Amino acid sequence: MLRVLGDINSGNCFKVKLLLEQLELQYEWVHIDILKKESRTPSFLALNPKGQIPVLEIEPGKVMTESNAILHYLADGTDYFSTDRLERARILEWMFFEQYTHEPSVASARYIVRYLGRPAEREQLLQKKLSDGYEALTIMERHLQSNDFFAAGKYTIADIALYAYTHVAHEGGFNLANFPALQRWLKRINAQPRYVGMDG
Amino acid sequence: MLRVLGDINSGNCFKVKLLLEQLELQYEWVHIDILKKESRTPSFLALNPKGQIPVLEIEPGKVMTESNAILHYLADGTDYFSTDRLERARILEWMFFEQYTHEPSVASARYIVRYLGRPAEREQLLQKKLSDGYEALTIMERHLQSNDFFAAGKYTIADIALYAYTHVAHEGGFNLANFPALQRWLKRINAQPRYVGMDG
Repeated sequence: MLRVLGDINSGNCFKVKLLLEQLELQYEWVHIDILKKESRTPSFLALNPKGQIPVLEIEPGKVMTESNAILHYLADGTDYFSTDRLERARILEWMFFEQYTHEPSVASARYIVRYLGRPAEREQLLQKKLSDGYEALTIMERHLQSNDFFAAGKYTIADIALYAYTHVAHEGGFNLANFPALQRWLKRINAQPRYVGMDG
Repeated sequence: MLRVLGDINSGNCFKVKLLLEQLELQYEWVHIDILKKESRTPSFLALNPKGQIPVLEIEPGKVMTESNAILHYLADGTDYFSTDRLERARILEWMFFEQYTHEPSVASARYIVRYLGRPAEREQLLQKKLSDGYEALTIMERHLQSNDFFAAGKYTIADIALYAYTHVAHEGGFNLANFPALQRWLKRINAQPRYVGMDG
């Protein structure tokens, strides 16, 4: 059976759970607490030397890391990906945007506020993350003003990847009041069949 | 004809050129000088609101951004990608590692040294980038100790993505003396058919 090592409150891990539920795949979830450094133990580092969650164990000894590569592995050949070459690359374009531009700002702000308790010595960094994060959200807003989804004209793993940290962006101090298309898109994702939230 | 807007000395742009040459595709290269802010002009931002290079123009009005999504688009269906589901995801796993972990450290160090002239006020940041970069290079070294390439047992776009900034890492102050497997891999990439360097 598929096994996921992760923390459901991590957006990168939540992505994997959401897709697994929507694909109706059976899996075991193994909770890893990064604040307790459970992703830095010798046994975890043997699975993933990068010390990052999530990890998908496809079978004993065969693991996949990088949340978006895991999404690709699970979605490949299903309706959550695409059979069209340009659409496949377009889905990946948004997924690389998510990991390079969106996650390092939107998720980092949330980490500083929610997990570190917004310490004074991180305030300057937080303001930079909020500023960069709003730039990323603005790029999404502009796209969603004329598109219901990010790529391929349908709900795909590009939406799942971008939804994960966007739907909890307020926990990092982001205010989405000026992002109406983004808000409608969040509701659209919430309404997908077999949707589950972070709280299960 | 395909058109690339980029700067050949940017690793992210060089990736695209290397693959285009190896696929023997015809293309036009339009030089964009980011230091002269040519990626921030209204006409450039109309093509890519993120203001990043490279941009691949597939046909007038149809553009692809994110270097690794461009690689995927060009390689899809060729020997530089894979027809196997697990191998496809494995290739993408390394490409997401490249954009999330490798590029933000290895390429950033080079930017500070080569393009900004290593200013004193960036020295602390540079040291952090070097430290993070060595961690990324160590993960690569460990993989290459028992593998000739990063995925699928052959030269793929995962190698192209990781080669781009690794082969000029010394320009950011990295010393690869303690990375013998990485050095052998760099030579292996150099020896691929139709290889071209940054200098053409």
